[in-house]
Amino acid sequence: MKKVGIIMGSDSDFPVVEKAVDTLKEYGVPVCVHVYSAHRTPLEAGAFAKNARKEGYGALICAAGMAAHLAGAIAANTTLPVIGIPIKAKALEGIDALLSTVMMPPGIPVATVGIDGAQNAALLAIEILSVTDESLAEKLQEARDKKAATILKKDQELSEKYSKLD
Amino acid sequence: MKKVGIIMGSDSDFPVVEKAVDTLKEYGVPVCVHVYSAHRTPLEAGAFAKNARKEGYGALICAAGMAAHLAGAIAANTTLPVIGIPIKAKALEGIDALLSTVMMPPGIPVATVGIDGAQNAALLAIEILSVTDESLAEKLQEARDKKAATILKKDQELSEKYSKLD
Amino acid sequence: MKKVGIIMGSDSDFPVVEKAVDTLKEYGVPVCVHVYSAHRTPLEAGAFAKNARKEGYGALICAAGMAAHLAGAIAANTTLPVIGIPIKAKALEGIDALLSTVMMPPGIPVATVGIDGAQNAALLAIEILSVTDESLAEKLQEARDKKAATILKKDQELSEKYSKLD
Amino acid sequence: MKKVGIIMGSDSDFPVVEKAVDTLKEYGVPVCVHVYSAHRTPLEAGAFAKNARKEGYGALICAAGMAAHLAGAIAANTTLPVIGIPIKAKALEGIDALLSTVMMPPGIPVATVGIDGAQNAALLAIEILSVTDESLAEKLQEARDKKAATILKKDQELSEKYSKLD
Amino acid sequence: MKKVGIIMGSDSDFPVVEKAVDTLKEYGVPVCVHVYSAHRTPLEAGAFAKNARKEGYGALICAAGMAAHLAGAIAANTTLPVIGIPIKAKALEGIDALLSTVMMPPGIPVATVGIDGAQNAALLAIEILSVTDESLAEKLQEARDKKAATILKKDQELSEKYSKLD
Amino acid sequence: MKKVGIIMGSDSDFPVVEKAVDTLKEYGVPVCVHVYSAHRTPLEAGAFAKNARKEGYGALICAAGMAAHLAGAIAANTTLPVIGIPIKAKALEGIDALLSTVMMPPGIPVATVGIDGAQNAALLAIEILSVTDESLAEKLQEARDKKAATILKKDQELSEKYSKLD
Amino acid sequence: MKKVGIIMGSDSDFPVVEKAVDTLKEYGVPVCVHVYSAHRTPLEAGAFAKNARKEGYGALICAAGMAAHLAGAIAANTTLPVIGIPIKAKALEGIDALLSTVMMPPGIPVATVGIDGAQNAALLAIEILSVTDESLAEKLQEARDKKAATILKKDQELSEKYSKLD
Amino acid sequence: MKKVGIIMGSDSDFPVVEKAVDTLKEYGVPVCVHVYSAHRTPLEAGAFAKNARKEGYGALICAAGMAAHLAGAIAANTTLPVIGIPIKAKALEGIDALLSTVMMPPGIPVATVGIDGAQNAALLAIEILSVTDESLAEKLQEARDKKAATILKKDQELSEKYSKLD
Repeated sequence: MKKVGIIMGSDSDFPVVEKAVDTLKEYGVPVCVHVYSAHRTPLEAGAFAKNARKEGYGALICAAGMAAHLAGAIAANTTLPVIGIPIKAKALEGIDALLSTVMMPPGIPVATVGIDGAQNAALLAIEILSVTDESLAEKLQEARDKKAATILKKDQELSEKYSKLD
Repeated sequence: MKKVGIIMGSDSDFPVVEKAVDTLKEYGVPVCVHVYSAHRTPLEAGAFAKNARKEGYGALICAAGMAAHLAGAIAANTTLPVIGIPIKAKALEGIDALLSTVMMPPGIPVATVGIDGAQNAALLAIEILSVTDESLAEKLQEARDKKAATILKKDQELSEKYSKLD
Repeated sequence: MKKVGIIMGSDSDFPVVEKAVDTLKEYGVPVCVHVYSAHRTPLEAGAFAKNARKEGYGALICAAGMAAHLAGAIAANTTLPVIGIPIKAKALEGIDALLSTVMMPPGIPVATVGIDGAQNAALLAIEILSVTDESLAEKLQEARDKKAATILKKDQELSEKYSKLD
Repeated sequence: MKKVGIIMGSDSDFPVVEKAVDTLKEYGVPVCVHVYSAHRTPLEAGAFAKNARKEGYGALICAAGMAAHLAGAIAANTTLPVIGIPIKAKALEGIDALLSTVMMPPGIPVATVGIDGAQNAALLAIEILSVTDESLAEKLQEARDKKAATILKKDQELSEKYSKLD
Repeated sequence: MKKVGIIMGSDSDFPVVEKAVDTLKEYGVPVCVHVYSAHRTPLEAGAFAKNARKEGYGALICAAGMAAHLAGAIAANTTLPVIGIPIKAKALEGIDALLSTVMMPPGIPVATVGIDGAQNAALLAIEILSVTDESLAEKLQEARDKKAATILKKDQELSEKYSKLD
Repeated sequence: MKKVGIIMGSDSDFPVVEKAVDTLKEYGVPVCVHVYSAHRTPLEAGAFAKNARKEGYGALICAAGMAAHLAGAIAANTTLPVIGIPIKAKALEGIDALLSTVMMPPGIPVATVGIDGAQNAALLAIEILSVTDESLAEKLQEARDKKAATILKKDQELSEKYSKLD
Repeated sequence: MKKVGIIMGSDSDFPVVEKAVDTLKEYGVPVCVHVYSAHRTPLEAGAFAKNARKEGYGALICAAGMAAHLAGAIAANTTLPVIGIPIKAKALEGIDALLSTVMMPPGIPVATVGIDGAQNAALLAIEILSVTDESLAEKLQEARDKKAATILKKDQELSEKYSKLD
Repeated sequence: MKKVGIIMGSDSDFPVVEKAVDTLKEYGVPVCVHVYSAHRTPLEAGAFAKNARKEGYGALICAAGMAAHLAGAIAANTTLPVIGIPIKAKALEGIDALLSTVMMPPGIPVATVGIDGAQNAALLAIEILSVTDESLAEKLQEARDKKAATILKKDQELSEKYSKLD
């Protein structure tokens, strides 16, 4: 199976990113975690991206805050799908990271998920691998069915507890 | 080869979306174009999404403006990767469509590209197919090399014309 | 009397939504509470909306955060008035939910109230029922008169305590 | 049948508001058009709102731009449902009017539609009347079915013209 | 001397508004404090404003949050200068109140100060009274001189403590 | 009668500012127009402000775009009321000028009007002078009455033309 | 004298950037113009930056729009001062480019000027060179004096034409 | 060696600004700390700026919040490079200070760093001095190399701990 790479711009992003690691592991997808900064270790970030396809990666997840260039810098060096997680930092509620990640120029797309959306980034990576992996597709569907069941159970609980019809 | 589906919320979005169609054709990727509205034809949109994987799709591109729910509504009905293009409408400079597309709740990711980023949406779909398709990966790399060469040619032209060193 | 349905996208929204439940109960309006997600239980959400008019509902209140599609997804499946409560989530101060709820395309309106505005959503539902229900109209007016009296009492207290005219 | 009142803050808003007038007429709903300013004719605006219920109105639509107080000022004087249309003016892309209309304090809701969303405002008013008017409910459903058919026809056209599967 | 009226939309705004009361008292300006809501006690608010000039007011300060219509509603009923304080509420960081207060239509100005800027609102009111009151003008200048001296003292302290020139 | 000073940061702002000049002239208020830049002629701007009170000014109107510091720089040098007009420039829809003008630190208020709100700036200046000038107060009220009459005439016209009650 | 490098992300940015070229030439500062994209020619961009100091550059100006990473990517590869010009593109009024340029992580600063602020970028570069170049400092001061004189002449013209004091 | 001046608008900004002081000291750059307010001590601020070049300063760092005029006011009085730090205050997440600092009019640039970006402001000042100071250039490079090494060490740790490849 293809691997998924997770790169964060700073180890301080790990508390958010951890959810992506956990999700990939739950699905049994091989995962490699890295800390590379687009600005402070650009060479290593670029080298990692350049080799990623032949190293067996199928998707790369990049998490960064503020002027979040990491996903773009990785995407510039690979034609693998690159998924960007904008991280909310101390100011601006994450809108800086969102715009820095998603508004990429023509030619170099970044598949952006919501602010701090680490779980969705992992699921998107798994969906990408699932295009040619029937068993992952099934696992994804099962998880959705399970989640739907949980919601419907909550629905039943709250409905019974709070509805008042007379 | 897997097909790519392009769904727009209104045929008025076609002038933006066309670039995605053209890009996919350039790469020889089979493409199916549809107009389904998350709000006005939710059943058809849902049915299309539900069948997409077994119909041979590998990725779905959704374009919509304003409270752009289309990508989310499609993603809710498939575990294929869904790519969202936020369309700029008459007010708010596209920020409404961007946030409505990208800020998805945990469990249902949408791979969002920039506002009106139809070409990047297509390239992202091709990157997804390229994970297991060597020839697409090569074509993507060639296009990048060609684009880089164009830029470097422009660099030479402008550098010669406008630099003044004494 | 017509019922009012309250649907939230996640049971984690209940602390905000509870105020709407309480308000409807205060006015003696029958209320049904549900948890349906536009993305994780789209079928159940749609089915509920489709049957709502004939089940005796007069208005549906939908609460969701982030890319808040719930109100739109419900509105797509009924011609009853649908009221949207944008919920403030961890990032972006609720502006994402507000725009995702209010900027609906032509044809499918959502009556949007302020961010976390659960009480107002309930009052709006009651106002809708009051169009043909004189006694509800009277109760609404009484509540307003009472609220006005409370404010004027506060006015008197603060005015006396803090005004200084010489 | 109950009437719908349309109030605009300035006659310069009429080009946007006209769509609401037309829509209500299409559905055979009696409509009264007024120009009242929350700031320049507050008395007349208030008096109109105060009498609206007993004058036979079922919903009031208010359109205003900038610090759009009209809907709130009308809502302050009636317990009928009040629908607000934020109008985009020369600066700020309509976000000022949207926030001024939707972020109402507890007790006085305004059912806000999208920026310049005059058609949706009218449809929302009709939905409100339809709660106790079966024939309006049917007309709304027919219009939706018709709109859906139009979209599906567009779908067929674009699908045939632009899909390329080999 | 002319009085200054301070009106807040809710007594919950008092902790912010108190600074304005204190400042006016420091300058010996007669001050009247009121709680009137543009939406819940519009009549009382309007009546107060209508009589304010002949009651001896020279400026009115209005504080409100969210869709902050209070200053505009007061300004609609008087030709006295009206000063608006946008109050930061639970969502949106105060931008809703700011835009609702400042973006007034032609004909009805509101002199808006910064978000939660109660002290500045009071000082602006005093500046207005100072136009024809020499002694207030002098007090304002003295306070500025004193404030400047305080800053320059801080400058000296920090400069000595933290500057390092060798 | 006190004079009103109008200072713009650049003569390119005059097309917006002209409305303020015209309005003041209509009311017979003496007006002095100046072009001073907070950044390019800070000395002259400061000197003008410092002398304004003793030169007989009663209010100063400052218009500037982008990082609009002019009103603040003038306010820093006078205790007269200073009115700021944020000018919309080529980018950002005027929000930069609005925030730069209104978010003043404690101690130095700027009475900010809406973006490009030159007429309101002039009316606010007249309101300030009217505090101790009965005849200006009367003129302001007359203009409001006239404006109200115009609106009510428009109301009659549109009401007759577009209302449809059967 | 040190050279100034101007790098734009796309030759389509040249109409904005040209003003920087012209300004540097007016001051007799040697200038080198380049087109390098952070995403499409990252190697060339990085190589240029790495060699810039020893090639005799004293400052680098980078112009880019959307998720504007160019300045950050250049800054990552040099310890020379890097000046960023955010370019306004088709959506979002330039706020995306501004945030992507200015919100740099600790360690890698970008000296950001206003949106489309090419002239100021050039002047900032000249100011940087002027720290150790007396003649540039003089030229900068002369230009400011000249600009001030122009403004004061405009002041005289408008003041005479539009002031009306009786 | 040239000195670097750090000016803050209020001593309450010191906790943010301290990082700039520390950074400059680490590099052995002479630093002078001042508290001057653009609005409350404009004369002292201007005088300091006017004399800065001949007093031996090579760059001035200005930190201010809200309508942050300090950097602009300093820049108006010197042709030295002026670096602006927008400070996040109680409302608006720092966007007010950012726009007030960066959107300077043509002719008077401010080199703006990110919100609360005190360390980067200091590093930018050092980069400016490094243009003609080889040893500073070396120290900057060493710090970057060290920082890169720290990141790569973190990379190794997290990579070993969290990667899971089978």
